[in-house]
Amino acid sequence: MAQRFVRVKTPQRQIYYGLLQLDRTVRVLDAPPWLGGQPTDLTLDADDYYLLAPCAPSKIVAVGKNYASHAAEMGTEVPQEPLIFLKPPTTVIADAQPIYFPPQSQRVDYEGELALVIGDRAYHCSVEEAQTKIWGYTIANDVTARDLQKKDGQWTRGKGFDTFCPLGPWIVRELSAEAKLQTFLNDDPEPRQSDLLDRMVFAPDFLVSYISRIMTLLPGDVILTGTPEGIGPMQKGDRVRIEIEGIGILENPLLGTV
Amino acid sequence: MAQRFVRVKTPQRQIYYGLLQLDRTVRVLDAPPWLGGQPTDLTLDADDYYLLAPCAPSKIVAVGKNYASHAAEMGTEVPQEPLIFLKPPTTVIADAQPIYFPPQSQRVDYEGELALVIGDRAYHCSVEEAQTKIWGYTIANDVTARDLQKKDGQWTRGKGFDTFCPLGPWIVRELSAEAKLQTFLNDDPEPRQSDLLDRMVFAPDFLVSYISRIMTLLPGDVILTGTPEGIGPMQKGDRVRIEIEGIGILENPLLGTV
Repeated sequence: MAQRFVRVKTPQRQIYYGLLQLDRTVRVLDAPPWLGGQPTDLTLDADDYYLLAPCAPSKIVAVGKNYASHAAEMGTEVPQEPLIFLKPPTTVIADAQPIYFPPQSQRVDYEGELALVIGDRAYHCSVEEAQTKIWGYTIANDVTARDLQKKDGQWTRGKGFDTFCPLGPWIVRELSAEAKLQTFLNDDPEPRQSDLLDRMVFAPDFLVSYISRIMTLLPGDVILTGTPEGIGPMQKGDRVRIEIEGIGILENPLLGTV
Repeated sequence: MAQRFVRVKTPQRQIYYGLLQLDRTVRVLDAPPWLGGQPTDLTLDADDYYLLAPCAPSKIVAVGKNYASHAAEMGTEVPQEPLIFLKPPTTVIADAQPIYFPPQSQRVDYEGELALVIGDRAYHCSVEEAQTKIWGYTIANDVTARDLQKKDGQWTRGKGFDTFCPLGPWIVRELSAEAKLQTFLNDDPEPRQSDLLDRMVFAPDFLVSYISRIMTLLPGDVILTGTPEGIGPMQKGDRVRIEIEGIGILENPLLGTV
């Protein structure tokens, strides 16, 4: 099994990066792994931590309409260049933490996505160089208040509410380009979204190169690579589960307003 | 004279928050002032530091079309609600640092703006409560690649290039609501932008309240309150100078691509 890199918090409020073992213990690292963190002597039992999102990005750069199937369902063309937008870091929550339905919205959608974790400062990178800046892969849900996205034109509010970026549960270093992404709602065995990652219009290395020519990417930053077709609304009380082969499962409940 | 709160870097690469004195020495604080930083015994001579942007925001939330005069010149209506967007933290530069003209763009504009610095975590604040979350005021230039802003629809790329958010030179705690904002290009004595801050459509306390109902604002975060009419392009080699009465002057040169 691929190594699973996690970020955890203890009941004493210590935050650690670590390696998740098969017995659910966590081998603590002395720094983020992309900054050269090495295993320490400290191991946490399964009852002695809970999972945080696996990194703490200084920025989350997301890509719109990066699957032809999704662009079509939104009634738009695939862009000639990647269409980027930002989600604030305050959107990030971990696996199993609740997404909150904001009172300003009538419609909140899931969007299952592959997330890239940057390991190294990336500034004006070629596509070849960009591949070396991708430290690993995790799963994201680009939660979207669809009505506010359409109303504002700018997507910042619709995609920027606290809890609107579930991220995790962990990071893996390697991923098959043909891995399948699927999104499920509650106990329905039929996926709402199901596509192969190689159906992306712009591949991960191209995206990192493109974004690095606009803004310097920093270690721990996250790129959301876009969602395939099948987006749709969630109701309060729903659970949304995103699976990517070779990574794992990211599942979050949707609750009413705090 | 109002106290001027700065952030500085020494030749030894130490970063400090401090109070700028009339003789240009800096009285060093032991923490960011909005986190209760107190003066220490350390004073830096004018030759022993250079100015950084006066805070290091985890996010920069900007407001579009917040002066009726600017909305009109862009051929749009004033929005019913504030229209928000994000600039990545990598856009921030200090007073006197160069803005770089990205090769992807043919037109880079200045936009002089009042910036609010948040002092305290702000989550779902009323307008009254929001006023207490504004720790101080500084000046920002919401530099914009106008052609890319129009081409993409989303404003992230056009407003998101490295160096596209000059911020500073310092923070003051108090500001007259009727202070004047002016933008000058090179040595032209005629201002390109000149408006009173009380001509904003949505006032600072309303903006902070509105944004806090979307995303939690954190100490050191920055709100750009929008630009008045008179936006326009800059050429490589130009110097752009933004003045706000009661704060000071933010001046930056525009250079060609790195």
